Amino acid sequence: MNEINRQIAEALSHIRQSKPLIHHITNLVVMNDTANVTLHLGALPVMAHAHEEVAQMTKMAGALVLNIGTLTSSWIESMRIAGGAANELGIPIVLDPVGAGATAFRTQMSQFLLKELQITILRGNAGEIGSLSGAGGVVKGVESVEGVKDPAAVAQAMARERKVVVAVGGKRDILSDGRRVLGVDNGHPWLTTITGTGCMATTAVAAFAAVESDYLIAAAGGLACFGLAAELAAQKASGPASFKVALLDQIYDLQPEQLAQGARVVELSGAA
Amino acid sequence: MNEINRQIAEALSHIRQSKPLIHHITNLVVMNDTANVTLHLGALPVMAHAHEEVAQMTKMAGALVLNIGTLTSSWIESMRIAGGAANELGIPIVLDPVGAGATAFRTQMSQFLLKELQITILRGNAGEIGSLSGAGGVVKGVESVEGVKDPAAVAQAMARERKVVVAVGGKRDILSDGRRVLGVDNGHPWLTTITGTGCMATTAVAAFAAVESDYLIAAAGGLACFGLAAELAAQKASGPASFKVALLDQIYDLQPEQLAQGARVVELSGAA
Amino acid sequence: MNEINRQIAEALSHIRQSKPLIHHITNLVVMNDTANVTLHLGALPVMAHAHEEVAQMTKMAGALVLNIGTLTSSWIESMRIAGGAANELGIPIVLDPVGAGATAFRTQMSQFLLKELQITILRGNAGEIGSLSGAGGVVKGVESVEGVKDPAAVAQAMARERKVVVAVGGKRDILSDGRRVLGVDNGHPWLTTITGTGCMATTAVAAFAAVESDYLIAAAGGLACFGLAAELAAQKASGPASFKVALLDQIYDLQPEQLAQGARVVELSGAA
Repeated sequence: MNEINRQIAEALSHIRQSKPLIHHITNLVVMNDTANVTLHLGALPVMAHAHEEVAQMTKMAGALVLNIGTLTSSWIESMRIAGGAANELGIPIVLDPVGAGATAFRTQMSQFLLKELQITILRGNAGEIGSLSGAGGVVKGVESVEGVKDPAAVAQAMARERKVVVAVGGKRDILSDGRRVLGVDNGHPWLTTITGTGCMATTAVAAFAAVESDYLIAAAGGLACFGLAAELAAQKASGPASFKVALLDQIYDLQPEQLAQGARVVELSGAA
Repeated sequence: MNEINRQIAEALSHIRQSKPLIHHITNLVVMNDTANVTLHLGALPVMAHAHEEVAQMTKMAGALVLNIGTLTSSWIESMRIAGGAANELGIPIVLDPVGAGATAFRTQMSQFLLKELQITILRGNAGEIGSLSGAGGVVKGVESVEGVKDPAAVAQAMARERKVVVAVGGKRDILSDGRRVLGVDNGHPWLTTITGTGCMATTAVAAFAAVESDYLIAAAGGLACFGLAAELAAQKASGPASFKVALLDQIYDLQPEQLAQGARVVELSGAA
Repeated sequence: MNEINRQIAEALSHIRQSKPLIHHITNLVVMNDTANVTLHLGALPVMAHAHEEVAQMTKMAGALVLNIGTLTSSWIESMRIAGGAANELGIPIVLDPVGAGATAFRTQMSQFLLKELQITILRGNAGEIGSLSGAGGVVKGVESVEGVKDPAAVAQAMARERKVVVAVGGKRDILSDGRRVLGVDNGHPWLTTITGTGCMATTAVAAFAAVESDYLIAAAGGLACFGLAAELAAQKASGPASFKVALLDQIYDLQPEQLAQGARVVELSGAA
C-alpha cells in the first residue's frame, strides 16, 4: 500500500471517530442527498443559511461547504459571512462553483467568493474550472459540455495563482495544490445518470478536509472514497435510482481497509 | 402502430440524441426528483431562480418549466422574467399551477402567469384546471378532491380561449389544443401514493416539448412515457418508495420501441 | 390490548378514512421525505410558506407542522402567521425546534414561537428540549450530543409550565402533558443513520394530532407508529438508503391491528 492510500484510509477512520460537523450552504436540489452522504461517511451534517446564524454555526464545524447550485444574492451573502468566520478560525472551506460559466451571475459570484474568502479547495467539473481559470470550457446549465485541453496544467496554474487546492472532476479527477498534481481514477459511469453526484463528491471532500490538513490528500481521499463506493454499488444497480440506493448504502459500509486497497490515486507530478 | 405513437417514440429518440436543457423554476419539494426524471429521459436539468440569471439560463434551454408548488412573490417574479425570455425566443413554457384553487394567492398567480406570458402547455390536475377555467373543481392543499364534469369540454374550451395546450391529469389524462382532444390512458395507481408525480409528469411533458413542436403531441408523449414507465415499474414495487425507485429506473430504461408499442393515446375529437 | 394501544390504532384508521391535510412549514432538507411520510400514513401533505397564503392554507388543514431546520426571519414570520390562523380555529400545531441550542438564533426563534403561539406539541431531541427548557443539553448542528439527566422530569415540568405536550426523542421517547408521562420504546438504530428521521417523526405526530384530540396520546401514536415501521423495515435493510426505502414502504403498509399489537407505550406516571 502506498503512502497516500494509507493517509486516506486513516482519514476515513478519523472521520468516523471524531464525527466532525460539516456546515453546508448548498443548493436546494441536493440538500437531502448531501446530508445523507455526510452521515454515511460518519460525519454530522448541518444545513443553515440565515445571515443571523451562519457565522455561529460555522464556528462549530470541521469544514464548510459552499455550493452555488441554486444561488441568490442573499445566499451568496450567507456564504460570505460563513466563509469569513471559517477563515478567522482556520476552518477549511470547499467551494463547488456549480454552473459557473453557464451564466455571468454564476461566474461572477464564484469569482467573488474566490476573491473575498480564502477558499481551501475548489472542486468543480471541467467546464466550470475552465471558465473560472480563463482556460476555456463550456457549461450548459450545470453540465460540463466542453472541458479544457490540459486539465493538469490548468489545475496546477490556477492552484498556484489562487493558493487553493483545485480539483477538476472527470473520468480521471485531476487535483493540484500548485506543486503536486494527482489523478483519482475511482468512479463509475452510473454517477452521470443521477443529479447531484458532483455535489456529493464535494461533500465527501469536505468531510476529509475536516480531519486531514494536507488538503490535496483530503481532496483525493474524498474523491477516491466516493468513487470507490460508486464502483462497488454499480454491481447492485439495475438503473440510476437503484444505483443511488446502493451508492448511499455502500458509502456507509465502506471500511478504511477497503479504501486503502481500492483507492486509485496516481501521482502525475511533484513530490506527493 | 398509429401515427401518434410513431411521433412520440421519435420524440423520445430525439431527446436522447439532442439532450436539451430543461430549465426548471419549480417547487422545493420535488426538485431532486424532477432533476432526476429529466436526466433519466435523456435531457439535462437545471434549477435556477435568481432574478439576475434566469433570463440568461432560459435562453440556452429547450424548454422552461414553471411550477408554483412552493411559490412566493419573488419566485413568481423569477418566472415572469424567465418566461419573458422564453417567449422572446420561442422556447416552449410548461406551467404546472400546483394548488391553484386551494388559495387565492395560487389562483391569482397562476392567472397572472397565464396572462403575462404566452404559456405553451398548461398541465394540472382536474381541480386546478377546473379552478383556473372557472368550471369548478376543488383543491385541498395540492390535491384535486373534486374535478370537473366534462374535462374534455373544459380543456378544449380553455385551450381555445387561452391559446394554450391544456392537459388535465386523471385516470385518463385529457389534452386539447382547442381543436383536437386526446386521452392518454397510461399510468398506475401507485403514482398517487408518492409526492410529486404530477410535477414529474410536467417535467416529462417539457422534455418532449423541447423536441416536438406539435405541442399537443409533445404533451401526450410526455404523459404516455411517464405513465408507461409507471406501469412497468409497478411490477417491481412492494410499496410506494420501492415503486419510486423502480419508476426512475424504468424511465431511464424505456426504449422508443417500447413507447411506440405501449403508449395508449386515444383521439377523442378533432383530426389528430 | 391496553387502552392506549387501542386509541392509537383507531387514530391510524381515522387518518386513513378522513385524509386530513397536514400543512408543513418545514426545512428544505426533508420536504420530500415528510411529504411522502404524510401520504403513506394516509393523510395529505402541503408545503406552503408565502406570507400571502399561509393563513388560508392552514385554515383547511387538520394540523400544522412548524419545523425550523433551515429557518430564516421570513420563514419564522410565515410560521407566526400560519400559527395565528391555527390558534384561531383550534387546529393543533406541532413545533420541531431543529437545532435549538446550537445557535442563539435557533434558540430565540423557538422561544419566540413558543411564546407567540399556543403550540400544541413540542417534539425535539434531548439536546433541543434541554436547551429550551433551561435544563441543559448540547446540540451540535442539529444533533443532540448531550441530553438531560432526567428527561421525564424535564418534559413534565416544561409541559406544565408552557401548557404544551412535550415529546423528547431518544432510545425511549419521553412524553408528557404535565400530568401524565409516557415512554415510547418503538424505534431502531438505523433511524440515526439517515437525515430527517426526527422531522418524519414530527410529521407522524401531526397526522395523529389531526384526528386525536388527546394530544399526549396523539404524540405517542405518531411516535409508536413511526418507530414500529422502522423496526419492521430494519429486517429488509442492507444499509441506510435501502432502510429508508423499506421504512417508507412499511409506513404505507402498516395496519391498525399491527400498531395495536406492536406499539410499546409505557405509562411512567400519572393516570393515562
